Amino acid sequence: MSDVELRVLAGGVVVVIDAIRASVTIAAALAAGARAVVPVLSVAEAEGRAAALRAAGVAVVCGGERGGVRVPGFELDNSPASYTSDRVAGRTVVFTTTNGTAALLHAASAERVLVGSFANLVAVCSAVEPDPRPVHLLCCGTRDEVSLDDVLPAGAMADRLVAAGRSLTGDDGARLAMLAWRGAKDDLEGAMRSSRGGRNLITQGLGADVTACSRRDWLEVVPEYDRVSGEIRLADGGRK
Amino acid sequence: MSDVELRVLAGGVVVVIDAIRASVTIAAALAAGARAVVPVLSVAEAEGRAAALRAAGVAVVCGGERGGVRVPGFELDNSPASYTSDRVAGRTVVFTTTNGTAALLHAASAERVLVGSFANLVAVCSAVEPDPRPVHLLCCGTRDEVSLDDVLPAGAMADRLVAAGRSLTGDDGARLAMLAWRGAKDDLEGAMRSSRGGRNLITQGLGADVTACSRRDWLEVVPEYDRVSGEIRLADGGRK
Repeated sequence: MSDVELRVLAGGVVVVIDAIRASVTIAAALAAGARAVVPVLSVAEAEGRAAALRAAGVAVVCGGERGGVRVPGFELDNSPASYTSDRVAGRTVVFTTTNGTAALLHAASAERVLVGSFANLVAVCSAVEPDPRPVHLLCCGTRDEVSLDDVLPAGAMADRLVAAGRSLTGDDGARLAMLAWRGAKDDLEGAMRSSRGGRNLITQGLGADVTACSRRDWLEVVPEYDRVSGEIRLADGGRK
Repeated sequence: MSDVELRVLAGGVVVVIDAIRASVTIAAALAAGARAVVPVLSVAEAEGRAAALRAAGVAVVCGGERGGVRVPGFELDNSPASYTSDRVAGRTVVFTTTNGTAALLHAASAERVLVGSFANLVAVCSAVEPDPRPVHLLCCGTRDEVSLDDVLPAGAMADRLVAAGRSLTGDDGARLAMLAWRGAKDDLEGAMRSSRGGRNLITQGLGADVTACSRRDWLEVVPEYDRVSGEIRLADGGRK
């Protein structure tokens, strides 16, 4: 995230990629019928936002993690598998994670902010292909380090967008991501498991989440962040 | 270069990679019989160092570039092809470039500093394989941005060192480089030409240098920086 300047994002479309796991979890929540996902930076902010929404009569569930573990007192963690329709349908999910929600709020200077991952890659690419504005693939990373697990879906998206006629900008980031994606795609799950994010989850017994985050196009939704309401909802037209 | 901390380098072996073109030019100078290459940060420092060496009776030639162009008053530019034996054999080359020489001096906190590129990849890997210390592949980059042309030889070296039994450290940098290398190797010159560094040289009419910097193992030398003398010479045993 550190190599993206706010002025570069302004006026464009940003796809926020926290591929293990926030981007997938947000898409899974909306696919399971959540009314909206509200990304917030801190646990205290989540609690305050949840209380305000409940006071306004909104059905709320709190979700998220710190260091990969469910926040104490929250109903849901950051596993896509936890976001089933019996838990989230018709509800608003107030959501905070270590990296992904910060990147989302960082990206709010863009005109249009989508949430992407391998799980909804084709849906997101289809949504941005007709958009004439510049597209930025924002890899969230971890503590200002590049994360392989974010770069690989960014490379797959760049490959697809270039094939659809987009040109690349001057710097080498997207080219590097595309080449890494090409080098990884024959064993994508192996590459995702080898990433720091993948290994961290496997160590915590959450290897099934890495598998889910490595699987292509099982969530045909386009989550879009609305900076006025601060909510992520299905993009215009809902499911793609 | 920005993602490498000095404390990480201390005690290890660093391979400094400025693949287009400084790493190749330094190797070419030594392969052509230069006594040593002295990397310095500024043009003024080069002039001072050259004067001091000449006063001590050393045969000196000044080489380097700013913005890809030969420094006014210097005998040689930063093209490997310029470093022929009639120009450099038996001489000391005082050398400054936009990025590469700064990275070399940055790396001087390491115990052993080598200069690597596609041109001497096998020679450098053979030199570090038996070394028990940690190996850092330092991609010089450009103005704190990652450079694809540096990452690709770093990935090729990492692939080779892992095959020889080295393990990777925790972060994702080397894994990303290895995957990008695998994605690029079927058209390595195409990938190097597509990099920002490659495109800059092509625009300046220096595409032949990109070709030379993309070619594998045509310089069987291991340049090693000695932090006491401040000189780069052939590593112990000279040519590999």
